[in-house]
Amino acid sequence: MGKEKTEFNMTCPLPIDRYPNVLLAHGAGGVLMNDLIEKIFLAAFDAQGDGERHDGAVFSVDRGKLAFSTDSYVVSPIEFPGGTIGTLAVNGTVNDLAMCGAKPLFLSAGMILEEGLPMETLWRVVRSMKEAADAAGVRVVTGDTKVVDRGKGDGIYINTSGVGVVAAGREIAPRRVRPGDAVLLSGDIGRHGMAIMAVREGLEFESPIESDCAPLASLVGSLLGTGADVHCMRDLTRGGLASALVEIADTSDTTIRIDESAVPVPGEVRGACEMLGLDPFYVANEGRMIVFVPAKDAGIALRAMHACRSGAGSVRIGTVCEKESRRVLVKNALGTERVVDMISGEQLPRIC
Amino acid sequence: MGKEKTEFNMTCPLPIDRYPNVLLAHGAGGVLMNDLIEKIFLAAFDAQGDGERHDGAVFSVDRGKLAFSTDSYVVSPIEFPGGTIGTLAVNGTVNDLAMCGAKPLFLSAGMILEEGLPMETLWRVVRSMKEAADAAGVRVVTGDTKVVDRGKGDGIYINTSGVGVVAAGREIAPRRVRPGDAVLLSGDIGRHGMAIMAVREGLEFESPIESDCAPLASLVGSLLGTGADVHCMRDLTRGGLASALVEIADTSDTTIRIDESAVPVPGEVRGACEMLGLDPFYVANEGRMIVFVPAKDAGIALRAMHACRSGAGSVRIGTVCEKESRRVLVKNALGTERVVDMISGEQLPRIC
Repeated sequence: MGKEKTEFNMTCPLPIDRYPNVLLAHGAGGVLMNDLIEKIFLAAFDAQGDGERHDGAVFSVDRGKLAFSTDSYVVSPIEFPGGTIGTLAVNGTVNDLAMCGAKPLFLSAGMILEEGLPMETLWRVVRSMKEAADAAGVRVVTGDTKVVDRGKGDGIYINTSGVGVVAAGREIAPRRVRPGDAVLLSGDIGRHGMAIMAVREGLEFESPIESDCAPLASLVGSLLGTGADVHCMRDLTRGGLASALVEIADTSDTTIRIDESAVPVPGEVRGACEMLGLDPFYVANEGRMIVFVPAKDAGIALRAMHACRSGAGSVRIGTVCEKESRRVLVKNALGTERVVDMISGEQLPRIC
Repeated sequence: MGKEKTEFNMTCPLPIDRYPNVLLAHGAGGVLMNDLIEKIFLAAFDAQGDGERHDGAVFSVDRGKLAFSTDSYVVSPIEFPGGTIGTLAVNGTVNDLAMCGAKPLFLSAGMILEEGLPMETLWRVVRSMKEAADAAGVRVVTGDTKVVDRGKGDGIYINTSGVGVVAAGREIAPRRVRPGDAVLLSGDIGRHGMAIMAVREGLEFESPIESDCAPLASLVGSLLGTGADVHCMRDLTRGGLASALVEIADTSDTTIRIDESAVPVPGEVRGACEMLGLDPFYVANEGRMIVFVPAKDAGIALRAMHACRSGAGSVRIGTVCEKESRRVLVKNALGTERVVDMISGEQLPRIC
């Protein structure tokens, strides 16, 4: 990559007529792999800026705390309303870092491609990663590509790992959750999971359900900027709101009481869930989080969250209590309480 | 995980009679996934020491330079003489960091499991990762597990990413390679690639070829400790010695002259290569590197390398020259020079 920057190319920069599909040789360490890296990955990510190809990226840090996280993405289908596996891969790892209270800085991208993948599809996915990285303010600085034989993959699997900095004195972790904490939720639940399921099951709606896939880093930045004493944050992914709550209750050894009527479930998500026999509390999101703050800080936290686009729909949904017999209790509109457990089997496989 | 450490469990800690194989539900965010993480991954890696499950790992660093690298591993078969996909995944990323002149510290592990994978196999792979991490002096601090449906994977794919510290003032990069540099090689070539090919092709030898898979971090530490002005290092992986040389010549805009007779090729590797019509210069290693140092420092560098087990077979194999017509020239025993290019197609797919 030269120093002159050209406008981001919207058409696939590999000569499609020569290589319309990914070949095993694109992962074998030779000329074709080099081509793929230069024309697709470096074209999008401009890896180290100076065009130098090395085994890793080197960067400077100040003394302090770093967060480090990893996630692999195997979502099927790889393109869906509201994003692609690439959008998910960038936002998912950005969000994991943000949940540690970190400002995400650098990502890696490890691609496992299936022989035969259309090069155009790869390019769309890589472009969506680039757009998501720009939107989240992170740089993809190092990467790797492998190709597996036809029938040994499913188009594309992506791993992203990330590094971010944690401000001095900040400690955000499940063990800090305590009785009296307010439980906040940053928006409505279930959109991502139902967007994927709708495509898989061929469900038709008046307006298609779009994934809520979004980076939460700036929302977290605003929230932490208020000075509210945030004890813990957790983004909702596999297993949805219910699993996130159960995990936190479990680690912090508390009982969490949730008011079901306070949890926003979009009408179309509720409809699709009824059709498929799913409980929206267990359906995945990719751009929502729960936040635990002392009740006295709930107001200031919610105001800051409302001011961000990705937190506009934030609400308080419950309270942390002393440990009682069970861990997560959800009270419905009739006043009846039910116990929410971690789901045992698979509800929605390959949702992220 | 409590504070008391028990001896590392050699038998699979998940009740095999209940779950002899990986199910889709083991990746779906519920009870089974939790079980898998606790009983297999945390049992091996004791992730954060305090038993706390969070979205990432947080650690302290001093002001300075960090290296960050990623690699996915899709080797087939996943177990082979001399290692497993897990050994490879740990050593490969450790070596990428070492090639940046970094001391590797932390690894992430992202597992993509295929439905039906025997739980015992997973446990052997995870155990081999733990052993490799201990041998290399790194800690696996964060991870992720996904399960894909039968026929959409191939047992196990692993991504490891890593973070390491680079000592102040150290700059090791292809652009520092210059005419006059000696080219050193840390041992014989081709063992890893031929170990894999021998299993795949069912070749029988008097003694089986073992992969050279090994961590290079302590070898690099000793080398850098000599004060030799190391310009560049590169480990030999996909594409073998030839591809590593071509990449460096390309980036540094030099011609590299190699003396073929100086390059150690084990007899059994040579034999297997002849049988399969392969050129050992292109066969993968996973525990060898090339080093570029000013000729005056070659002696001291070699002495330090010889003192390490993983560098006992180190030799000088060539010299960097001013750029001439071609990039990498190999002189054979008869004095004839041939040009070595990057291989265009696939020689050995899924070798790492």
